[in-house]
Formats: sequence, structure tokens, C-alpha cells
Amino acid sequence: MSSGYKSWILLTGFILFYVAYLLLGALVFSTIERPVEDKLKSDIQVLKEEFLNQSCVNATSLENFLEKVLQANKYGISILPNSSASSNWDFASSLFFANTLVTTVGYGHTTPLSDTGKAFSIFYALLGVPFTMLVLTACVQRLMHPVTYGPISMCRQRIGLDPLTATAFHFAILLLLVVLGFFVVPAVVFSHIEDTWSFLDAIYFCFITLCTIGLGDYVPGEKPGQKFRSLYKISVMVYLFLGLMIMYLVLRAFHRMADLHGLTSFFQLPHCDEDTEEDKEPIIEAGPEDQHEAEASAKPLDPASQTSYNTINR
Amino acid sequence: MSSGYKSWILLTGFILFYVAYLLLGALVFSTIERPVEDKLKSDIQVLKEEFLNQSCVNATSLENFLEKVLQANKYGISILPNSSASSNWDFASSLFFANTLVTTVGYGHTTPLSDTGKAFSIFYALLGVPFTMLVLTACVQRLMHPVTYGPISMCRQRIGLDPLTATAFHFAILLLLVVLGFFVVPAVVFSHIEDTWSFLDAIYFCFITLCTIGLGDYVPGEKPGQKFRSLYKISVMVYLFLGLMIMYLVLRAFHRMADLHGLTSFFQLPHCDEDTEEDKEPIIEAGPEDQHEAEASAKPLDPASQTSYNTINR
Repeated sequence: MSSGYKSWILLTGFILFYVAYLLLGALVFSTIERPVEDKLKSDIQVLKEEFLNQSCVNATSLENFLEKVLQANKYGISILPNSSASSNWDFASSLFFANTLVTTVGYGHTTPLSDTGKAFSIFYALLGVPFTMLVLTACVQRLMHPVTYGPISMCRQRIGLDPLTATAFHFAILLLLVVLGFFVVPAVVFSHIEDTWSFLDAIYFCFITLCTIGLGDYVPGEKPGQKFRSLYKISVMVYLFLGLMIMYLVLRAFHRMADLHGLTSFFQLPHCDEDTEEDKEPIIEAGPEDQHEAEASAKPLDPASQTSYNTINR
Repeated sequence: MSSGYKSWILLTGFILFYVAYLLLGALVFSTIERPVEDKLKSDIQVLKEEFLNQSCVNATSLENFLEKVLQANKYGISILPNSSASSNWDFASSLFFANTLVTTVGYGHTTPLSDTGKAFSIFYALLGVPFTMLVLTACVQRLMHPVTYGPISMCRQRIGLDPLTATAFHFAILLLLVVLGFFVVPAVVFSHIEDTWSFLDAIYFCFITLCTIGLGDYVPGEKPGQKFRSLYKISVMVYLFLGLMIMYLVLRAFHRMADLHGLTSFFQLPHCDEDTEEDKEPIIEAGPEDQHEAEASAKPLDPASQTSYNTINR
């Protein structure tokens, strides 16, 4: 079996296993948290009725009541009637939670209520966070050629740019496309779907999400009576995964550019790692002279650049 | 000036500039958000008085009131009297917010209320997140020798272990020390300081924080009347920075071990990057034979390992 074929099978296996891991996580979170949520929901409704039935409302009774309401709200349980229909721990929401956990976004609009849920969150993230990094790295590794090396090599051949200018020019174009495709366009879509979000709110959401900060003040699909809620949540998950992949790709392209421009040497930081032969395969298909050019552009003065490709065979 | 000396001056400069960046961010966030918070706080108090003064409380009026209370609570403004004294946007809290933003932890227990605050958050994180990564990488780069290469080399010399066993043994010890020093001990401290936190809650907080998930269901120093609140918040920030550094160090040590055991080659992922000559300096001080040993242990069968150190001079 050729190395390229094996590599794609491996990647597909990774992604399928990753999806299975998310589904399993969703199932467990839903099973653990749903009964606790139902209990807390009915408790809070009883509390509300008791509060409404009392003869006089004074400051102390109101504050006691509000304290419990705010406590329940912290766990994502609202006392308002229009939001009591949807659960935070149905399958789609649990899947969304599992996804925000392993990607380290962690909005925190819903958090585990039970000790079992908290312990499982630790265990799940302990495996899930490195696994997500592995899947993202594997995907980016395979995208580096068509998105970075290929276009840079083309810039040099067609426009006749020198390696440094070609890399900088390519990075500027890549950044522009990413800002448009992963920030501006999604922000337009979100601000249309979510009634209460302005365009700034939506851009702020996209940015806070794709940096994995995940403040959680804006979370899609949380308004009461959201149409196609499950489908919407899953689409946001896909956006999140693709967005994180592209952010990582931009970061690697930037790292490579910083290497070429001597910034990493100046700051004495680790260099962007050489890629395996796998990445070079499409260049070989395009013609052997491209490969030498790409290698030359990658490390113009590096005597080790040829030999280091062999290290994958050790 | 020697390269080692220059390197330490550079690192000190980085850290000082980083602290200045955090202080500046805190100042701006506090200036922008404080007036908005005060306005919302007084609005919610007026609302509470109006609610208490009405003759009869029915379900509709209660729900309208609760909707506004929950909305304010989303922005970290509580209607409860004991929590109204402390601000979410005093200098220490703003500094803490700025820190959780640039480290991508993002608890979201306080979020910007104004459009100016949201726009500034984007701008601040846009520069701050890569800057934090740069500072962490620079610190880890300088810690890799005393924490990783040095002890591995010592294991090989003193106990006579082979490179693979020495690396695995060192990683196991490192992991144990990190779990004790950055999870168990801090969890004991947090569960003592925070009255409502169990030991599991505290471990869960440490884990969710150092993975940068930051759900925000547990945030230290948020209880009303917290003693030495500012000092406590700053201590948590130091814990966060050191913790992230050590997590990154563990990740690099793991990456290196995975390289040696052929895992990165198997999954066709980028190899752990070679370190600059800077890292090797303490080895040179210890004796030149150690250096060769360390290099041999790093890449036992890699013909490029010697030449690749020269790449920092290009």
C-alpha cells in the first residue's frame, strides 16, 4: 500500500473515531445530567409557585427567592416559562457541550450539575483535548501543501517573486480569505439567524470562539423556540471544527513565514517543524522540479533540509 | 554580549512587556466598563424597588422582573444586596479578565457590556493571544534543558537506562510532580479558601482552567466579602501563568517522547522541533560529552540532527 493511501486511510479513521468519541460523550453527559436537570427544574417551579402564593412580598423573601433562581440559572436552568421547554442536556446540546469541552472553547452556558458529571468532564477532556489536537494537527498537516506550499511555489514561478516576498504575499492573501470566510460571512449568517445579535455581536462571537476563549455571553441556538435547533447546533460544531483547523493552519503559515524572515531565530524560539514526505506528494505529481523549488523556498540556506525528510523512516 | 546573556535579557524584556500589556488592558477595560456597570446596577435596584412596591405580584409581573434580573446577571451584575458592593470592573477584576482573555481561558463570569468593550476585547485578544503564546514558548524553551534534557541525560548516566526507557521514566516522574504541584496542592488550597467548594470542585476548577476550557462555573475570589480579594486574584493569575507554562512543557516533553517512540512518524505528524543552541548551553557548561549524549538520545538514528542546529544561524 502506498504511503499516501495509508495516510488518507489513517486520517479518515481518526476523524470517524473522533466523531464516535463525541457521540459517546454526548450520550454519557445526557444520561448523567438529564435527571439532575429535571429535578432542579421541578424544584425551581415549586419555589416559584410558593413565592407567588405568599400573601406579602418583602425584600428578604424576594432576595431568598432570587438567590435560588440565580443559583439555578448558573447551571443553565431558567425559571422563565418560555425557556423551560428545551433541555440543556438533550442529545444535541450534550454533543455541543462535549465538543466545546474537547476543543477547549468551553462557553460555560451549561455546566455539569452533578459530581459524576464533573468527574466525567475531567476524564473526558483528559483524553479528548489531546485527541482533538491530534486530529486537527493531522488535518492541517495534509492541508499544508495545497494551501501553503503549492500556492507559494506558484507565486514564485508565475509572478517571479523571491521566496520571502512570495511567502509574505501568500500569507496576506490567506489571511484575507480566512477573515472573509470564517469571520465576516459567518457573522452575517449568525446576525440573521439570532434576532438579538448585532453584526458586532456576531463578529465578537466568531472571534471569541475561534480563539477558544469562549466567554459564553453569546451562544448560538439558545433562544427559546429556535427552529431546527439540533441541526443548527451541529452546523455550529462543524463551523467550530473547520474554523479551529484554519486558525491552526494560519498559525503554522505564520510560523513558517517568521522562520523565513529570521524572527524565530531572533527571539530564539523553536522553528516551524519540517513536514513529512507525505506533504510533498502532490508536488511530486506536479513535477519534480517544483519539489526542489518548494524545498529551496522553505529553507533557502539550510543544509539539513534534504536529509531531515528521511527522519520519518527512522 | 554572549548569546546566553542576550537570551535572558530578551526573556526578561518579554515578561516585563507582557505585564505592562496586562496592566494597560486592565486600565482600558476598567475605564470602558465601570460606568456601564454602575448604570446597569442602579437600573436594577430601581427595578427591584418598583417590584417590591407594587400592590399585587402576579406571574406575568414576576416573569418580566425575572427576565431583566437574569439578563443583568448574564453580564455579571447581581441583584442580591451582599454582592452589590464589589465591582466586576475594578482594577484587579479587570486585570483578571484581561488575563483570562489572552490566555484563552475565558471564564465568562464577567463579560464586556458595551459595544466599545466588545470591540476592544477583539483587538486586545488579537494581539494578546499570540503574545501570550510567544512568552510561554520563550519560557518553556529556556526550561526544556533543566527540566527535560538534563534529567534524562542524568537518568542515562547514573542509572544506565537506554534513551527510550530514560525518556519514558522521566516523563512519568514529571507527570506525577505536575499532578501533585499544579492540581492536588492548589486544589487543597482552593477548597480551603472557597467555602462552597469541595475538593472535587477544586480539582475540577484546576483542570478546566489549565486546559484553557474555562467553563466559569467555579471562579476564585467571587464570593461576597472575600478577604484580600485583589491579592487573591493576582495569585490566581500567577498560578494560571505558571500552570499553562508547565502544561506546555509537559506537552513538549510528551511530543519528544512520542517522536522517540516513533508515534509521530506512525501518525505522520510533525516532529517535535529541535531546540536552538541556547538550550544546549547548560549542557556545554556541564561538559561537552553530555551534549553529544543528549543529541544522541534526542534523535538516535537521525543523520540530520547534528546539522539542523546550524539552522538558527541562517
